Amino acid sequence: MDKNSLINLLELVKSGEVKVDDAVSKLSDLPYKDMGFANIDNHRELRVGYPEVIYCGGKTIEQVKGIFEFMATKDCNILGTRATEEMYKEVRKVCEDAEYNKIGRTIVVKRKEMQTTESYIAIVAAGTSDLPVVEEAYETAKLFGNKVEKIVDVGVAGIHRLFNRLELIKGAKVVIVIAGMEGALASVIGGLVDKPIIGVPTSVGYGTNFGGVAALLSMLNSCSSGLSVVNIDNGFGAAYQASMINKL
Amino acid sequence: MDKNSLINLLELVKSGEVKVDDAVSKLSDLPYKDMGFANIDNHRELRVGYPEVIYCGGKTIEQVKGIFEFMATKDCNILGTRATEEMYKEVRKVCEDAEYNKIGRTIVVKRKEMQTTESYIAIVAAGTSDLPVVEEAYETAKLFGNKVEKIVDVGVAGIHRLFNRLELIKGAKVVIVIAGMEGALASVIGGLVDKPIIGVPTSVGYGTNFGGVAALLSMLNSCSSGLSVVNIDNGFGAAYQASMINKL
Amino acid sequence: MDKNSLINLLELVKSGEVKVDDAVSKLSDLPYKDMGFANIDNHRELRVGYPEVIYCGGKTIEQVKGIFEFMATKDCNILGTRATEEMYKEVRKVCEDAEYNKIGRTIVVKRKEMQTTESYIAIVAAGTSDLPVVEEAYETAKLFGNKVEKIVDVGVAGIHRLFNRLELIKGAKVVIVIAGMEGALASVIGGLVDKPIIGVPTSVGYGTNFGGVAALLSMLNSCSSGLSVVNIDNGFGAAYQASMINKL
Amino acid sequence: MDKNSLINLLELVKSGEVKVDDAVSKLSDLPYKDMGFANIDNHRELRVGYPEVIYCGGKTIEQVKGIFEFMATKDCNILGTRATEEMYKEVRKVCEDAEYNKIGRTIVVKRKEMQTTESYIAIVAAGTSDLPVVEEAYETAKLFGNKVEKIVDVGVAGIHRLFNRLELIKGAKVVIVIAGMEGALASVIGGLVDKPIIGVPTSVGYGTNFGGVAALLSMLNSCSSGLSVVNIDNGFGAAYQASMINKL
Amino acid sequence: MDKNSLINLLELVKSGEVKVDDAVSKLSDLPYKDMGFANIDNHRELRVGYPEVIYCGGKTIEQVKGIFEFMATKDCNILGTRATEEMYKEVRKVCEDAEYNKIGRTIVVKRKEMQTTESYIAIVAAGTSDLPVVEEAYETAKLFGNKVEKIVDVGVAGIHRLFNRLELIKGAKVVIVIAGMEGALASVIGGLVDKPIIGVPTSVGYGTNFGGVAALLSMLNSCSSGLSVVNIDNGFGAAYQASMINKL
Amino acid sequence: MDKNSLINLLELVKSGEVKVDDAVSKLSDLPYKDMGFANIDNHRELRVGYPEVIYCGGKTIEQVKGIFEFMATKDCNILGTRATEEMYKEVRKVCEDAEYNKIGRTIVVKRKEMQTTESYIAIVAAGTSDLPVVEEAYETAKLFGNKVEKIVDVGVAGIHRLFNRLELIKGAKVVIVIAGMEGALASVIGGLVDKPIIGVPTSVGYGTNFGGVAALLSMLNSCSSGLSVVNIDNGFGAAYQASMINKL
Amino acid sequence: MDKNSLINLLELVKSGEVKVDDAVSKLSDLPYKDMGFANIDNHRELRVGYPEVIYCGGKTIEQVKGIFEFMATKDCNILGTRATEEMYKEVRKVCEDAEYNKIGRTIVVKRKEMQTTESYIAIVAAGTSDLPVVEEAYETAKLFGNKVEKIVDVGVAGIHRLFNRLELIKGAKVVIVIAGMEGALASVIGGLVDKPIIGVPTSVGYGTNFGGVAALLSMLNSCSSGLSVVNIDNGFGAAYQASMINKL
Amino acid sequence: MDKNSLINLLELVKSGEVKVDDAVSKLSDLPYKDMGFANIDNHRELRVGYPEVIYCGGKTIEQVKGIFEFMATKDCNILGTRATEEMYKEVRKVCEDAEYNKIGRTIVVKRKEMQTTESYIAIVAAGTSDLPVVEEAYETAKLFGNKVEKIVDVGVAGIHRLFNRLELIKGAKVVIVIAGMEGALASVIGGLVDKPIIGVPTSVGYGTNFGGVAALLSMLNSCSSGLSVVNIDNGFGAAYQASMINKL
Repeated sequence: MDKNSLINLLELVKSGEVKVDDAVSKLSDLPYKDMGFANIDNHRELRVGYPEVIYCGGKTIEQVKGIFEFMATKDCNILGTRATEEMYKEVRKVCEDAEYNKIGRTIVVKRKEMQTTESYIAIVAAGTSDLPVVEEAYETAKLFGNKVEKIVDVGVAGIHRLFNRLELIKGAKVVIVIAGMEGALASVIGGLVDKPIIGVPTSVGYGTNFGGVAALLSMLNSCSSGLSVVNIDNGFGAAYQASMINKL
Repeated sequence: MDKNSLINLLELVKSGEVKVDDAVSKLSDLPYKDMGFANIDNHRELRVGYPEVIYCGGKTIEQVKGIFEFMATKDCNILGTRATEEMYKEVRKVCEDAEYNKIGRTIVVKRKEMQTTESYIAIVAAGTSDLPVVEEAYETAKLFGNKVEKIVDVGVAGIHRLFNRLELIKGAKVVIVIAGMEGALASVIGGLVDKPIIGVPTSVGYGTNFGGVAALLSMLNSCSSGLSVVNIDNGFGAAYQASMINKL
Repeated sequence: MDKNSLINLLELVKSGEVKVDDAVSKLSDLPYKDMGFANIDNHRELRVGYPEVIYCGGKTIEQVKGIFEFMATKDCNILGTRATEEMYKEVRKVCEDAEYNKIGRTIVVKRKEMQTTESYIAIVAAGTSDLPVVEEAYETAKLFGNKVEKIVDVGVAGIHRLFNRLELIKGAKVVIVIAGMEGALASVIGGLVDKPIIGVPTSVGYGTNFGGVAALLSMLNSCSSGLSVVNIDNGFGAAYQASMINKL
Repeated sequence: MDKNSLINLLELVKSGEVKVDDAVSKLSDLPYKDMGFANIDNHRELRVGYPEVIYCGGKTIEQVKGIFEFMATKDCNILGTRATEEMYKEVRKVCEDAEYNKIGRTIVVKRKEMQTTESYIAIVAAGTSDLPVVEEAYETAKLFGNKVEKIVDVGVAGIHRLFNRLELIKGAKVVIVIAGMEGALASVIGGLVDKPIIGVPTSVGYGTNFGGVAALLSMLNSCSSGLSVVNIDNGFGAAYQASMINKL
Repeated sequence: MDKNSLINLLELVKSGEVKVDDAVSKLSDLPYKDMGFANIDNHRELRVGYPEVIYCGGKTIEQVKGIFEFMATKDCNILGTRATEEMYKEVRKVCEDAEYNKIGRTIVVKRKEMQTTESYIAIVAAGTSDLPVVEEAYETAKLFGNKVEKIVDVGVAGIHRLFNRLELIKGAKVVIVIAGMEGALASVIGGLVDKPIIGVPTSVGYGTNFGGVAALLSMLNSCSSGLSVVNIDNGFGAAYQASMINKL
Repeated sequence: MDKNSLINLLELVKSGEVKVDDAVSKLSDLPYKDMGFANIDNHRELRVGYPEVIYCGGKTIEQVKGIFEFMATKDCNILGTRATEEMYKEVRKVCEDAEYNKIGRTIVVKRKEMQTTESYIAIVAAGTSDLPVVEEAYETAKLFGNKVEKIVDVGVAGIHRLFNRLELIKGAKVVIVIAGMEGALASVIGGLVDKPIIGVPTSVGYGTNFGGVAALLSMLNSCSSGLSVVNIDNGFGAAYQASMINKL
Repeated sequence: MDKNSLINLLELVKSGEVKVDDAVSKLSDLPYKDMGFANIDNHRELRVGYPEVIYCGGKTIEQVKGIFEFMATKDCNILGTRATEEMYKEVRKVCEDAEYNKIGRTIVVKRKEMQTTESYIAIVAAGTSDLPVVEEAYETAKLFGNKVEKIVDVGVAGIHRLFNRLELIKGAKVVIVIAGMEGALASVIGGLVDKPIIGVPTSVGYGTNFGGVAALLSMLNSCSSGLSVVNIDNGFGAAYQASMINKL
Repeated sequence: MDKNSLINLLELVKSGEVKVDDAVSKLSDLPYKDMGFANIDNHRELRVGYPEVIYCGGKTIEQVKGIFEFMATKDCNILGTRATEEMYKEVRKVCEDAEYNKIGRTIVVKRKEMQTTESYIAIVAAGTSDLPVVEEAYETAKLFGNKVEKIVDVGVAGIHRLFNRLELIKGAKVVIVIAGMEGALASVIGGLVDKPIIGVPTSVGYGTNFGGVAALLSMLNSCSSGLSVVNIDNGFGAAYQASMINKL
């Protein structure tokens, strides 16, 4: 129930057109029944221009296609993550302006231009094998209206490469560090940069990497402060939070 | 080597008072030898008024006492975390103005007043058993100069209590959510609040809680976006990053 | 040895046609030899109309086909779980009235109508990716003669959707909560509903989800009381127990 | 806001004593501000006579004493779980009628008599080492007003002992099976009894028992249907749910 | 129901003193009610001279004392495992002839002499730190009437020591190999000796030993055939099975 | 160096044809250089008629074929385990009398008849999904010359089926229990049968079964004595040890 | 910035051709900006003739091809590890002299001959299934200019085979031990050989091998000193370190 | 059997005083019976001056005292690791010149001076909490005759401190890196230093550190080559291998 409906209802009570009893019964439903929609409305207003996000990972091609088809009618920006190329081909049939980032596995539909921030998010990654996560984070951050700088292949095995890019990293408002294997890059940057850092462990590695667990534990136990972590390979989540911070 | 020393050296080269060879040998040391100290200086300037932080957890009473004794000569604010009451008693002997937070296990020495932020950090906790982590985060955030609001005992088993405090949480610039057991509070707040959220899983629980791993996994796998996580029971780390974000 | 045989034997003892010694020797075998069959008989009587259940997961197509072929001669209801479409195609050849639920991966043969309960089981699920488990639980509960209400896509990331359906959930006699990722939905419902809740963690998620372990631990460590848990993705098991409770 | 206040407010709107605008502003707060209290009230009414439950495990002696002192003024039944003897001694000072179950580590204050059910809960345990969990479940079930039968020391290593007590177990409305080590008892009972079974793995064992994980996994993977599980050593949780089921 | 009672009953049926119906009702209870005791009797007869075994680990001193007190009246051999010295002191008060093995933590009461086997069990251990498990196995095997040879401190770090004792090991009918750390001894002996080997991983070690898990996994994955494994530190279990094999 | 060569050498020393120094140098090599072959010889004599065993699991089709081709020249019995059907087809080309057990994935070449034992090994399995492990154990035990009884589908969910076969199990000299899911069957049989039991956990199951770990932990923590365990799905290893015991 | 450039710059300062200010600004960049390149140069000089190494595992065929194409222009030796045959086919198109080791999955381009060491690395492996790791280590060690001896199939199940090759192992300067299953070979060799040993656990095995974790834990917990470990299946890493040691 | 005994025996064969048959029977025992002692002798000669090492961790005070007492008669250097202060006090009673390193928990008896190497081992540690492991490694390396440089408190959170000491680290022949928490220091040094590096993960940390597992996984998965790892907290093992390498 939005504000106007509420005013209307009360005016009708005042004028006697609606009985107190009937009004009571309607208003009693408020806490549960309508809070939901009110909540949605508030959110929608807050988020004007925000993309709708679809996690395609656990869905069938048909489901993904259907959701895009429906959303495309709403004229909003759409971000699909973990999308296969097959999904994209089907989505294109119902949404001609959809674009696919093959490495980042994202489908983007851009219908509204968002104002881009002046401050930027630095996305720093250890190696080229981390690129899928980098691209997912990049597409997310861009579509949410952020200026973004990508700094890739600066792993600690050749730490001089990192130092060469340090000024660019230091200039960011918030830093996303993406690293697999032992994930030491997050700690090293955390010791050099005085900005909030969001670590994304990746599943790059083998043996005792355990699909990214080694990098995750490394980041959670970092001796550097100012570092928090998202789920393994979760480039979207890191970019989502980084966008929140970048826009403060 | 600071800028002035460098200018002096070059002037001496120019005037011939220092030979090129000798200058080369001095400058060759620069990248490694002096970067360290330069770095320290820069950091110190950036961090004027920032507390020095001592993790007392892995140290002996004698070590903790010695570090406080040394630092107390520098007239800076000091924060000791994971400090036992025995440690505090010894620290008091060399640092009379040290204060102890028994629940948060922190020792605080406050010698310089920091300007407090207008925006605030919300520290939200599920239950009273999470208080040690809450207090550690609180003392940290306060000493770093942040306005802080504590909202405790709003776990999801009685979700109405959470809704009663929701406006206060929504008003924060950044939210720390502290929860043990299944850690669901972080997801629920993540679904209700459009602010960066830092989750702190706590070791509160038993059996398959595995010392906080259940809550950690819960937060890492949250279906809510905008949520990142620090190590189990790491109230200090969460407050440190929250302070960075709150001051943006 | 059924009751009649026992009576017969004793009558023969009484009449002297069977010697005490021979009767002793026959009766000595009772505990092991015959208990089995007696047990089966009792069970069969108790379970009139209950479907026979076949877990197809670990079996070959030939084995599944063979079991259905044999059971179909007994004119009872049959439920096959974790069945592939290939299995279904073969089963159809020997059992024409078999029906397949593609999402729930169940094969159902319905030959006897069971009386449906008046009270209902609520099957609540967090997201559309949990549908395979929802459908397995649904088919199971229906075939066991329960009235069922499905409430899907009410995950805690948008908690208002849950509140909109809360009355329907509260009206159930027993609630099945199906959730992957962090599984927080079970705790939230547990805090709102005063009914026995059976949690089913699902393997929906990635990274530190560990194939459903994150959701499982979350549910086992729930701060809400009145919640018990079955194995990951075990929609059948949850529905089986819910049916037992619903029929009390 | 209760119904009467709402009616009053609307009457005042109708009569013009309260302006529509002011009423709108008051009612806008409803969904969050008051839902909580309404919820509490509803719950309290539903739960007349239910004990208040305090998990003492993660609390200090002072905290436990304080909570009992406060609750004792409300004249309700109180159940404290995981309470040490030291806690009890302090609680006795503020609550003279508190009683302590040394094995089950429970403190019980009984001020209101609840009507006892006719149907009973069977609490079945494998060995004497499981007694702490048995007693916690027993005290919980009793205080919630259930008739309870305890059947202890019927582990599968001597399965005949189980068969001797089988009729008593079969007569229950719901069965709690408590077992450590390999937890096989739950599967065996699940294969013999057609009632809802709640398994409680216990931390009894050593080596690869991993503090109860072996028994937990055993129960979660049981080949018997109709079995769900609570956290390791969680006698309270099992009894809470069993009570819900027993009272259906 | 023992044989005599059964004969009596049948005689009474024959004579008409007991009606068939009443006999049916009594005999119907047989499979469950009496099988237990019958079973116990059978077992006792089979096991004449076998010690009664009490796992003291999970029990209180009072419980252990009580059980010994009761059993001591039955004039059988008793073996208590995982017994503390405090337990032993109490047991002595009710059972004067109890003897304590301080290293093996066993209490032994020997009242009946068992005939000792001619073939022997070889108990082989890697290091002196494994002695508690060695002694537990030794006391168990001896009390069950086996000839035993102990071969200690033959770990693979100095493999020549093993070769020096190889003939003694090869002469055994069954071999128990007790090893902590990496547990390689079991594989090495498995490659040299053509006898059934029972491996006992011990919790000796630190770091990634994980309380014996490293040794357990090592033994389970042994490239040598003819090797099976019991739980970590389970000297009793190994000796129990070895005794069974030695007496074949 | 075999006995004859040693005698020859010593004769030559005696006759003076070989100098003491040269003999010393040859004999000094003995411990390492020749022990190996001696060992092999000893083993071969001990094992007359024993099959050569090839674990095909980690090998390429070419490797498997090559090994069979070589061994087939030696006219001994051969057992290949974990062999795919493709492997078998290739092996047939070089070894016409090879036979394949499709369920047990074994290739058997039988060239020498072994005398079959009078005592038998009981192979007991919980469900039909455990058949691959049953068949591997069966083929192994048979080829090693044992009489074998298979008792399948006697899982604890229908414990009466087990009791019906109990006499057959009790009559064995050694029992192999094969079970997946929660593996409770091993404990139950351990409580009923006074024979050495070798447990084989299988990877049958899903979710928290963790590929057989649940069953493994269950068996390692069994409350029944006289039970030892081999690696998950290791039917060969269990049969190998059982054969050793059966032939004692 | 290399030494000559630095001398040039200072000469220009001395001569007045470059202003002190400009020199300051250039030199200020040194610590970060140029250290990297200096570092690279130093490394390159140190490593003359060292192969460039490409981990192909996490890369697409296109990426691998591109990197080889670029590097091939630099006329250096190249080692690609974890390369599929498909990758090799593409690499061949841009790099005709590339050679593929099918078992070791390496691509080698050899353009410069390195001087081979006199001392040798012994690569010892337990079984033929470990060959892929053996070959990866072998190719690596060879291309880095080491003399290498391979000793394969000397697992502890037939320890005499190991003794036969012991002298060759003892003669090495450093030993690589490659073993899967329980990895006991490393401990045994560690007890017999007084040389630094690098253990490589392999993922060969099944069940509780957990993809090499059993062997890893075994090696980490070895009772033999002088043994360190690299990641599971990491033949390259072991050979890299062994090469470092062999060249000391 | 030593060389002289062998010559004697052969002389007696030659002279006819010992029959060929008797000599054969004596020599047949050689491989096993005497190899052990021969082996010990060889080892002793090879290791002149090497300390005897006693792992005190798993032993009782009495056992440790006894071993020292016995060894002290042999006039060799002795190293006891993981020794408590209580152990040391007892050892002093039988070995007056024993010295205790309280932080490193080592007991050292130095009776023979070893020649110290010219090259040195660098022991690098992240923080002061790692000192116990540093000191254990230091005492070990010193007693084995190595020159050692300790570089402590150079963790990556303040990477400039590391760069200041880099030349000293680069000058070593082999580097031991000791680090807890996330263990990133090993990777960073591995990227900067071209020497064999032995990583020692320490149990310093909390929460998801899991007693050093986080640091261990980090080191095993290091993106830097030339790094191998020993068990958590195993300062002794690292120094033992480093000593082997340093003396090459």
